[in-house]
Amino acid sequence: MALSALEYSRQNYSRFLDELKALLRIPSISTLPENQGDCRKAAEWLVAALERMGMEHVRMVETEGHPLVYADWLHAEGKPTVLVYGHYDVQPPDPLEEWVSPPFEPEERNGNIYARGAVDDKGQVCTQLCALESLLATTGGLPLNVRVLFEGEEEVGGEGIAAYVASKPADLKADFALVSDTEMFAAGMPTLCVGLRGMIYTEVEVRGAKTDLHSGVYGGVAPNPFVALAQIIGRLKDQDGRILIRHFYDDVVVPSEEELAAWRSLPFDEEEYRKAEVGSRELVGEPGYSVLERTWARPTLDVHGIPGGFTGAGAKTVIPARAQAKISMRLVPNMTPAKAFAQFKSYVEEIAPAGVDVEVRLIHSGDACLVPVDNPYIQAATRALHEIWGKDTVFIRSGGSVPIVGDFATHLGLPSVMMGFGLPDDQLHAPNEKFNLGNFKLGIESLIRFMEEAGR
Amino acid sequence: MALSALEYSRQNYSRFLDELKALLRIPSISTLPENQGDCRKAAEWLVAALERMGMEHVRMVETEGHPLVYADWLHAEGKPTVLVYGHYDVQPPDPLEEWVSPPFEPEERNGNIYARGAVDDKGQVCTQLCALESLLATTGGLPLNVRVLFEGEEEVGGEGIAAYVASKPADLKADFALVSDTEMFAAGMPTLCVGLRGMIYTEVEVRGAKTDLHSGVYGGVAPNPFVALAQIIGRLKDQDGRILIRHFYDDVVVPSEEELAAWRSLPFDEEEYRKAEVGSRELVGEPGYSVLERTWARPTLDVHGIPGGFTGAGAKTVIPARAQAKISMRLVPNMTPAKAFAQFKSYVEEIAPAGVDVEVRLIHSGDACLVPVDNPYIQAATRALHEIWGKDTVFIRSGGSVPIVGDFATHLGLPSVMMGFGLPDDQLHAPNEKFNLGNFKLGIESLIRFMEEAGR
Repeated sequence: MALSALEYSRQNYSRFLDELKALLRIPSISTLPENQGDCRKAAEWLVAALERMGMEHVRMVETEGHPLVYADWLHAEGKPTVLVYGHYDVQPPDPLEEWVSPPFEPEERNGNIYARGAVDDKGQVCTQLCALESLLATTGGLPLNVRVLFEGEEEVGGEGIAAYVASKPADLKADFALVSDTEMFAAGMPTLCVGLRGMIYTEVEVRGAKTDLHSGVYGGVAPNPFVALAQIIGRLKDQDGRILIRHFYDDVVVPSEEELAAWRSLPFDEEEYRKAEVGSRELVGEPGYSVLERTWARPTLDVHGIPGGFTGAGAKTVIPARAQAKISMRLVPNMTPAKAFAQFKSYVEEIAPAGVDVEVRLIHSGDACLVPVDNPYIQAATRALHEIWGKDTVFIRSGGSVPIVGDFATHLGLPSVMMGFGLPDDQLHAPNEKFNLGNFKLGIESLIRFMEEAGR
Repeated sequence: MALSALEYSRQNYSRFLDELKALLRIPSISTLPENQGDCRKAAEWLVAALERMGMEHVRMVETEGHPLVYADWLHAEGKPTVLVYGHYDVQPPDPLEEWVSPPFEPEERNGNIYARGAVDDKGQVCTQLCALESLLATTGGLPLNVRVLFEGEEEVGGEGIAAYVASKPADLKADFALVSDTEMFAAGMPTLCVGLRGMIYTEVEVRGAKTDLHSGVYGGVAPNPFVALAQIIGRLKDQDGRILIRHFYDDVVVPSEEELAAWRSLPFDEEEYRKAEVGSRELVGEPGYSVLERTWARPTLDVHGIPGGFTGAGAKTVIPARAQAKISMRLVPNMTPAKAFAQFKSYVEEIAPAGVDVEVRLIHSGDACLVPVDNPYIQAATRALHEIWGKDTVFIRSGGSVPIVGDFATHLGLPSVMMGFGLPDDQLHAPNEKFNLGNFKLGIESLIRFMEEAGR
């Protein structure tokens, strides 16, 4: 009997690890001009790997920045098509002195591999490559149609891939996307991320006098844009953190009792989270909602900065002519950015104090996303994960957004299966980034079985 | 019969004007390194002028910046001593292209002399010099004891003179100060400024999480220092501008009905003021108080800037770990900075929202000042002004502070007679600064008569 893809992956594991190390040695730091050549080298490395395993139409897609890498295999007639996504660029490694082993000399320690990019995202890209190779090598084909799209600018905004996806090229036609750039809720706990919050990012500008004025001479009659702005912001949320914008919560969909029950059963220590992750005196937010509900399933409003005026050391007695605030709101599934912005804008205009002009601008926005747990590809993923990990999948959400998931949904109409094998302590973007070797191995196996199940 | 000082000043007016022009030709811009030598040249010019007229102990007093110029004449036994103050430094002249005649080539036009420093403050320093010369030349002495102290750093903070005054040197012992650096309420209207607001300048710092956090991942649970700060600021004043700090108004002394009546009779067009000076949609402030009351006799609170966080272009989704606000309050006579700061601090700490740490710091403070209208030197000034201008003196206040007046009061115990001959349209700190020649002439005469009256 022929070798199964799973068996192949186990027999070739040590070579797979060597290949991951080779990719990790390329310092493909997308943000640094001196590493431009390394980014291209990483892209070339991926092209070679995809060609070697038998993927077709392998090529680089040039962008204004670092190239995309594309490949496909489309001979599984009647089967669905998956768009496999990952990124080959990494964050800068500094501060260098805090690394136990050099960031671009991958080292195995304590069952992990340490290097910049180990988990974010080269290790996860390699799980995809190794799964594809295992399937191609043992069956001469793939259980479903596969398109691969890797980018090299995820850490710097991903404009190249966004523009490419927005152009809706024919070679991205698919039924769903597999995004391998997330983490598990905890070690040994197979996880799928099925929800992301959307957002609107705004600027509110308040103008008072025609020029900056002396606060001694004019204090008491000249409107102060910073005071006005503070009065506006002070009325956006109540002291408990509940947003006061009219009808803002109208479209919020409460997670099902089943989903909430699942969240409650997750291993989560709120006090430990407060101390270790947030480090604040206390956690804030709407009463009656758990931390996970508040960060995953409730809209929020934050102020990021209030530029303008005098910001130097010491004292300057000026009434600034204008003030600005950067204010964003996270939206949850079923809320729409356009409606939320209209509500925000009219509320701000309504509560603006006398004497000032107020302008509310939308800087950018993104839709929330929620993939139903009964989506067939999510179901396929849970079967695969159960087989490999021996446990039921945990469905989580993320309070942030993954722009590429929004782009896939908006422009290509694709739901994303966000299956990742990182761990919460993997030190993304920090010194001593790592990827757990057990997760690398089981990640490959999970993806093999996922593709088999998705193509069944 | 011998020539009177007044007659002398009239006969010598044209030479006095030439001397003013000579001083105006020296570009003694205190803030520019390339004009350091010019500042010293202006100081030397003053030393020479004081020596020439017969003042004694004429000398430069070195500071860490530009030198002070000191002189005295102390032979009027049994008479009071006046400390005569002015400054020889000027603001930079830019934008140069807006000057009709070059800033350091004084030109007479329309009954004015145009030059940088014409009114601020070289023209007013010259009124003092010419008055002293006229008295010395005609009587061989002075009607009271005189100390002169000129500085060259008024436009850059005046640290040198502040330090010198704080050291309480014996050569500044006096009974009152004559400060010639203010303006008349309107043309032809002899004016004394008898009140200045004091101030406290503070920083409020709010700290939330231990580091900056991602607003997607932590929005909803991490305290946002900018929101907290806005909530605090939003509760410092009500929508009408009334300060909500407990007991803040307790010590405010309402101006006498006589003083208020005098202010009401001043020529003041509120709509013109709003349009031309402030340029805002409307004027704000406490209902029931006129513009002059709100700027001269009511405490106020202003926010100057809110540094920290994200202030660049575009969007950054950060919950900043900390935010700061620069907040100052103007105080009126009888309020004390220490008490006002204590009230402010405890109120801010009380209203600070949950989840954040708040620190309130005092950056600097200054006492308000009010010279009673029945002060004998103010009375002497009004007699002199009435004689020269043929009108009753207008007593005004200023919403700002004149630091040297506070220093004279605090360290030397001196009340200041703020008698100035600038006009509201003299373009201080702006292109085409001017000094009215009629005011120069009558200013000299007013000071001659003032010294005679003060020494009577």
